[in-house]
Amino acid sequence: MSGLVLHEYPASGNCYKIRLVAAHLGLPLELRRYDIMKGETRTPEFLRDVNANGRIPVLQDGDRFLTESNAICYYLANGSNLIPDGHYNQADMLRWMFWEQYNHEPNIATMRFWIRNVGLDALSDAQRMQIAGKREAGLAALKLMDDHLDSRRWFAGDQFSLADICLFAYTHVADEANFDLEAFPDIIRWMERIMTMPGHVDLDEQVPLALEPARQ
Amino acid sequence: MSGLVLHEYPASGNCYKIRLVAAHLGLPLELRRYDIMKGETRTPEFLRDVNANGRIPVLQDGDRFLTESNAICYYLANGSNLIPDGHYNQADMLRWMFWEQYNHEPNIATMRFWIRNVGLDALSDAQRMQIAGKREAGLAALKLMDDHLDSRRWFAGDQFSLADICLFAYTHVADEANFDLEAFPDIIRWMERIMTMPGHVDLDEQVPLALEPARQ
Repeated sequence: MSGLVLHEYPASGNCYKIRLVAAHLGLPLELRRYDIMKGETRTPEFLRDVNANGRIPVLQDGDRFLTESNAICYYLANGSNLIPDGHYNQADMLRWMFWEQYNHEPNIATMRFWIRNVGLDALSDAQRMQIAGKREAGLAALKLMDDHLDSRRWFAGDQFSLADICLFAYTHVADEANFDLEAFPDIIRWMERIMTMPGHVDLDEQVPLALEPARQ
Repeated sequence: MSGLVLHEYPASGNCYKIRLVAAHLGLPLELRRYDIMKGETRTPEFLRDVNANGRIPVLQDGDRFLTESNAICYYLANGSNLIPDGHYNQADMLRWMFWEQYNHEPNIATMRFWIRNVGLDALSDAQRMQIAGKREAGLAALKLMDDHLDSRRWFAGDQFSLADICLFAYTHVADEANFDLEAFPDIIRWMERIMTMPGHVDLDEQVPLALEPARQ
């Protein structure tokens, strides 16, 4: 696989997942970066050439464009040891990836975005009314993860997989969403295992394999 | 594959997806039904024996329990023609399934639940404040589907797949969430193709293959 281009916003956990998968696999990714706060993914050119939905991440492979961060991770990891053997284990890995997008990301990632990018003072009334619910649901998600890890090292198939990478992306910055991970010791130990693995890169690390071309 | 038990709430589109996949595959499913409005998925027995997260659907296969509707569909359809050939097509199918859970279900299915099961008058203030946003996001999701179907018969891989089934489940009852599908003619034609396929079952249809045992 070569010639892969990731259209991304670097601080997004959804984009980081993909860089982390690529780093573990040694896959070169060309990174094209957009500032979502300046509307760079809503320009006529982006909507026409990259994603009519105006969102990142988007993986470009030749003339094909794939969206949805977890589907992109699945695409890149095809045939690798980031996908466990066995049909049940693969479905269970996907279970955690669907769970992440439904129960984790809309609470923890959205709260992080509101705090970091928008600012709590600038939220709409409708957004402000959701904070308590997102806080409760985010804590419930973290507790479910912590309970799962009480007797397991990894989320699916007894091995490090895409499920761990996709859940790590926003969990490890949950403090930026005002979630205190000290209450979840099994999550902390799991994060330490991931962060000390060979091939790991941090969210704000320039991936050695990734080349960022000069923007046109 | 045999001895499969689906723990479900019949009116849930997320449960219907799984019955529809099983019907197309001719897979027998034993159905165990719970009334979520009576708290039957929050009893100590359910939390201990079926799902600590208190949610349905759950697929039981022997001593294994799998959650997340779209992961269950993927598990059942392994090796069948409901999953397209080719690695890109499979990732693109998953892309629509992740998109469904993030962009479609939280808007259209949640609005349907609030209208059918909770009642708009009984919503909390925090819920009521979300109606306008969910309406706008639900319409955007339907428009994106309609645009996609403008030049295609199916969502992924140029064939009927899990992506179509997972998107059909809540789209075909969008009127119950006060979304008018008349504005989306390509969605209507796509739904007609699905509803006239051999093997199709309706949401409220007793699947011939499914046996519901007497409840203990």
